[in-house]
Amino acid sequence: MSRFGTVGVALRNVQRADAGTVERLGVHGVATIHEAQGRTGLLKPYMRPIYPGAALCGTAVTVLAQPGDNWMLHVAAEMIRPGDVVVVALTTDNDDGMFGDLLATSYHARGCRGLVIDAGVRDVRTLAEMKFPVWSRAINARGTVKATLGSVNVPVVCAGVPVEPGDVIVADDDGVVVVPRERAADVAAAAEAREKKEEATRARLATGELGLDIYGMRDTLAKAGLKYVE
Amino acid sequence: MSRFGTVGVALRNVQRADAGTVERLGVHGVATIHEAQGRTGLLKPYMRPIYPGAALCGTAVTVLAQPGDNWMLHVAAEMIRPGDVVVVALTTDNDDGMFGDLLATSYHARGCRGLVIDAGVRDVRTLAEMKFPVWSRAINARGTVKATLGSVNVPVVCAGVPVEPGDVIVADDDGVVVVPRERAADVAAAAEAREKKEEATRARLATGELGLDIYGMRDTLAKAGLKYVE
Amino acid sequence: MSRFGTVGVALRNVQRADAGTVERLGVHGVATIHEAQGRTGLLKPYMRPIYPGAALCGTAVTVLAQPGDNWMLHVAAEMIRPGDVVVVALTTDNDDGMFGDLLATSYHARGCRGLVIDAGVRDVRTLAEMKFPVWSRAINARGTVKATLGSVNVPVVCAGVPVEPGDVIVADDDGVVVVPRERAADVAAAAEAREKKEEATRARLATGELGLDIYGMRDTLAKAGLKYVE
Amino acid sequence: MSRFGTVGVALRNVQRADAGTVERLGVHGVATIHEAQGRTGLLKPYMRPIYPGAALCGTAVTVLAQPGDNWMLHVAAEMIRPGDVVVVALTTDNDDGMFGDLLATSYHARGCRGLVIDAGVRDVRTLAEMKFPVWSRAINARGTVKATLGSVNVPVVCAGVPVEPGDVIVADDDGVVVVPRERAADVAAAAEAREKKEEATRARLATGELGLDIYGMRDTLAKAGLKYVE
Amino acid sequence: MSRFGTVGVALRNVQRADAGTVERLGVHGVATIHEAQGRTGLLKPYMRPIYPGAALCGTAVTVLAQPGDNWMLHVAAEMIRPGDVVVVALTTDNDDGMFGDLLATSYHARGCRGLVIDAGVRDVRTLAEMKFPVWSRAINARGTVKATLGSVNVPVVCAGVPVEPGDVIVADDDGVVVVPRERAADVAAAAEAREKKEEATRARLATGELGLDIYGMRDTLAKAGLKYVE
Amino acid sequence: MSRFGTVGVALRNVQRADAGTVERLGVHGVATIHEAQGRTGLLKPYMRPIYPGAALCGTAVTVLAQPGDNWMLHVAAEMIRPGDVVVVALTTDNDDGMFGDLLATSYHARGCRGLVIDAGVRDVRTLAEMKFPVWSRAINARGTVKATLGSVNVPVVCAGVPVEPGDVIVADDDGVVVVPRERAADVAAAAEAREKKEEATRARLATGELGLDIYGMRDTLAKAGLKYVE
Repeated sequence: MSRFGTVGVALRNVQRADAGTVERLGVHGVATIHEAQGRTGLLKPYMRPIYPGAALCGTAVTVLAQPGDNWMLHVAAEMIRPGDVVVVALTTDNDDGMFGDLLATSYHARGCRGLVIDAGVRDVRTLAEMKFPVWSRAINARGTVKATLGSVNVPVVCAGVPVEPGDVIVADDDGVVVVPRERAADVAAAAEAREKKEEATRARLATGELGLDIYGMRDTLAKAGLKYVE
Repeated sequence: MSRFGTVGVALRNVQRADAGTVERLGVHGVATIHEAQGRTGLLKPYMRPIYPGAALCGTAVTVLAQPGDNWMLHVAAEMIRPGDVVVVALTTDNDDGMFGDLLATSYHARGCRGLVIDAGVRDVRTLAEMKFPVWSRAINARGTVKATLGSVNVPVVCAGVPVEPGDVIVADDDGVVVVPRERAADVAAAAEAREKKEEATRARLATGELGLDIYGMRDTLAKAGLKYVE
Repeated sequence: MSRFGTVGVALRNVQRADAGTVERLGVHGVATIHEAQGRTGLLKPYMRPIYPGAALCGTAVTVLAQPGDNWMLHVAAEMIRPGDVVVVALTTDNDDGMFGDLLATSYHARGCRGLVIDAGVRDVRTLAEMKFPVWSRAINARGTVKATLGSVNVPVVCAGVPVEPGDVIVADDDGVVVVPRERAADVAAAAEAREKKEEATRARLATGELGLDIYGMRDTLAKAGLKYVE
Repeated sequence: MSRFGTVGVALRNVQRADAGTVERLGVHGVATIHEAQGRTGLLKPYMRPIYPGAALCGTAVTVLAQPGDNWMLHVAAEMIRPGDVVVVALTTDNDDGMFGDLLATSYHARGCRGLVIDAGVRDVRTLAEMKFPVWSRAINARGTVKATLGSVNVPVVCAGVPVEPGDVIVADDDGVVVVPRERAADVAAAAEAREKKEEATRARLATGELGLDIYGMRDTLAKAGLKYVE
Repeated sequence: MSRFGTVGVALRNVQRADAGTVERLGVHGVATIHEAQGRTGLLKPYMRPIYPGAALCGTAVTVLAQPGDNWMLHVAAEMIRPGDVVVVALTTDNDDGMFGDLLATSYHARGCRGLVIDAGVRDVRTLAEMKFPVWSRAINARGTVKATLGSVNVPVVCAGVPVEPGDVIVADDDGVVVVPRERAADVAAAAEAREKKEEATRARLATGELGLDIYGMRDTLAKAGLKYVE
Repeated sequence: MSRFGTVGVALRNVQRADAGTVERLGVHGVATIHEAQGRTGLLKPYMRPIYPGAALCGTAVTVLAQPGDNWMLHVAAEMIRPGDVVVVALTTDNDDGMFGDLLATSYHARGCRGLVIDAGVRDVRTLAEMKFPVWSRAINARGTVKATLGSVNVPVVCAGVPVEPGDVIVADDDGVVVVPRERAADVAAAAEAREKKEEATRARLATGELGLDIYGMRDTLAKAGLKYVE
């Protein structure tokens, strides 16, 4: 299948990342996961949650949609399994409100944990009350048609990052990060190690000790030529 | 009067949309109203509320203002009648903070329900405490002068949408929609019909039934050529 | 020292604005301070707080950082004295997440009141829980390197405004304003006078009296040619 | 007809502005026309010509198109009469390349003088060679579908300005201005008067005489409080 | 290798698309190629040529660079073979001027046909005189450091599109399109077929015949409900 | 005088940078000057010339203007001496067309070499024919009023960079750079040294020699951990 996201196809069976690994990843924040996989996989920062405190971790059902057209979001509903997150990429930049409370009701009923959409979303107050988390590029009441095919469960590029069906999606107030399915266990382990190390550092920093000393930066700063002036 | 919003005029008497119709429209969200009038009348999505949960419905007093100049917002205060919403358009793009807690105190005292301004607003914390809702293109403390005439109660284009004095303005977390005065009753009826229909659909979707089946999309998808892959 | 912010220098001793004056300034909002110093000193409005209700007043420790590199934010930690606010400018536009909960723990332990950064910030939920206020151009989990020198406590231009170490920084929901150290007392006095005057005006406006009459605008509007139409 | 641009309608017979008046307007630049009608009618400045020196004046055939869909541009071809300019507005922001060399060949064959489109355009090198002038919000090779109805010859808002079929469109390197059909003769006369007056001013300025003296600004500057410092 | 573009690797041997196929693709414009491969592969339209008439076709050497750091562009120089095009993606958005006349001299000497860079470029006048074509997101004189590793010849996402080393890059005034190496021959054939078909259509349109009739749209428009009004 | 640019003042006598030094700086491009002064002084890259090949070097007359108001540009005309460049900063972001062919005629008659304006400009075709170079943030026909004071020859921040009257301004296709008057001779010398060194490098690169070898990067790349893969 083309890496550009073939149009007109819907895959029913997708291998999801291991459920236990998903749970392990879900206890960490987006920043930690992003660091743990070598500073990769982070969606562009224009992707924002629709309410403070929104957070999720799940496996991707991917959607490729056309501008102003949410037809494929209905096709995707059937593909959702409990624990999934729907990730919507578009063939071109578009801010229209492709998703609202009706689709959220449907997705929620199918066990979907939330939505990541490189387009607009509407009915955001209702979605917040439903505790259905969404990360989007816009909040926009503009409605859409159902006229042109896209695809479901093909590789997509969402907000600058390649996503494949079954990948792990972690999202919180800091944004959205994608963990490739095949790397999920390694990244979970790296995140746990990082978190442990940071805890110790945090405790030292809280006493007023300086990062300059904890991380041993004074020598490299001097070598780089930093001049302290009294 | 020119459709471009003549400068230097203030109209005292404006025919408002019928009060009962305004109340009927006010029970619906922006997305519903926008759909009910054929996906028209929605301001561009950069218009955002200054606090979550802000919502209003009222009749428009329109203002055409110059960049960096809020003189006409003072002239508009006198035109406000209880139930009005002030809608401010500018002659050119400008983000300055044209409206703050003093004008809000004045507008509130005159019975104004809120503000829609294609410019900046300030004192937003105080406005939130006053529960005075505002939709704006920016939050900006920058002050403005009172030096160049605009107009009050002329036709304007606000955030991409033509607004006439007396139109109905509905705004919530999803944005702002304008309903022309002469169409208000029809749109209210259409919104009510749509809402009723959506309730039934929502109940079915909540059980896990698919939109594909409820809306009968399977045939049209097949005709359009969608290929399901197992 | 160059007004362009020399690279490779860290100043240890900086004259801060007088502490009593800082407290006097801190009781006013950003809009009031900005007006009190002749509508100057306001950072561009893309600088937004990471949580509603964030507010601070303190003295500036300035940082000049390179894109994608937060090394100098560690150097700055050592320069912080209780009551300081760290102000980060960049040599070029960059949205990376240069500051997170570890640096916040460190800064907080040193007595820092908050951060103003013309770049990105991450771990925003934790920062909100810590009540560590930040104003930034972006929320972004993207991590940064420690490879290239910048400076600490040199003159910088942050979000369009020249800032010098020791200046007073006032920030709230409306944005961020800089008060030059040497003008701080005068601006405090002007802000107090303005506030007093506004209180009286507010009371009159609250009764429904018009700004047109309170400010005596009717004559100047007539001279400018405003035509009232019944 | 709704001021919001009804969808699904194509008007065959439109009253164009008087041909002689169009020619009179065509000898002036966009800045002059915009000033002559009281600084109104100018499209937002993101509308740029695809090649330097592009210029046109003609009567508007208006199009309302859907995002990513150029169907209505084909419907419009039939409505073109010699001397027309096609003006395309969209129901939502979209940058796709709705117009290329094939449509340009068609439009040119029908006597069309050029295109103003609040979307993207492609084949720009060929269009430049054809001397077919276009003003657009983007240059973009992205292709579009023909699936959803818009309208032809209805009132639209293009790049912030209301346009009606038959209006005069003037465009050059400075941008695009719309002159309402019913005001065309008055604006032509005002433009001619302005041009004549400017010629005399230009001659005086060319000798080094100052605008301060020609326009008599010294007194008003002094009254406003300008202080000259030696 | 990770689809996210591993950091710290430089691949020397890359399989390029077949040279003959590259030449076949090079006779078509970007719009034609983009259509011929099913409307995929087009970089976002903010990628613009630095001079009018710039055009190229060649095989990709890919670079993943850090913000404000052009080190990897020097590493890439060694990988260039005659007929290559260097494609630079960044780990984060950055507009700095990573490429100028010195690197262009080097690349040109190695047989490079041009540059596609999702960052800034400088010395654009000299590059235009050298006829060294560049497509970039910005023109920017800002200099960069050589401090942090990226990679050469790994998969990248450039301006929204996944690119692999050896892919075919076609660029002209309309933008930049990527053709995957393994699909190059098929796309060349499809482009040729499309071009031939368009020639015939162009000839008919040039006589004034309408696309409505050539493409047989009248029926589908009627079915969709378009109403013609006299 | 406040570093924020006091409003209401016009300075008649300003010490310009030495004329000989200005000429020495004028033979170099913007990128060279920017590097020669330690990568500082470069205006943000949104400042673009209105025609290709525009270039200038001269001494700054600074203007602080209000949004939508070009009054101070007339005051500045009187301050121009042969060899000057007018640099316009605004109190807030604004794109209006503050400068056109009349002011250009006046400025040219006074010996002005060109304009750098963080706002809009109009009549660009005429300006190009006059060979009057302008760098601006927008091309925009929108006219402006003459109602509110700004200042002439005060310190300003233009497109992110502090500029003082008498500074040297160098501008070309790559953008605009400011050289502080007091550093002008040093920067000229550094630019000459850099240019000489680059000439030798350019000759070596033109033979196909690699920057990796000329700059001796292979060791540092290896130490940083770059892995070459065959």
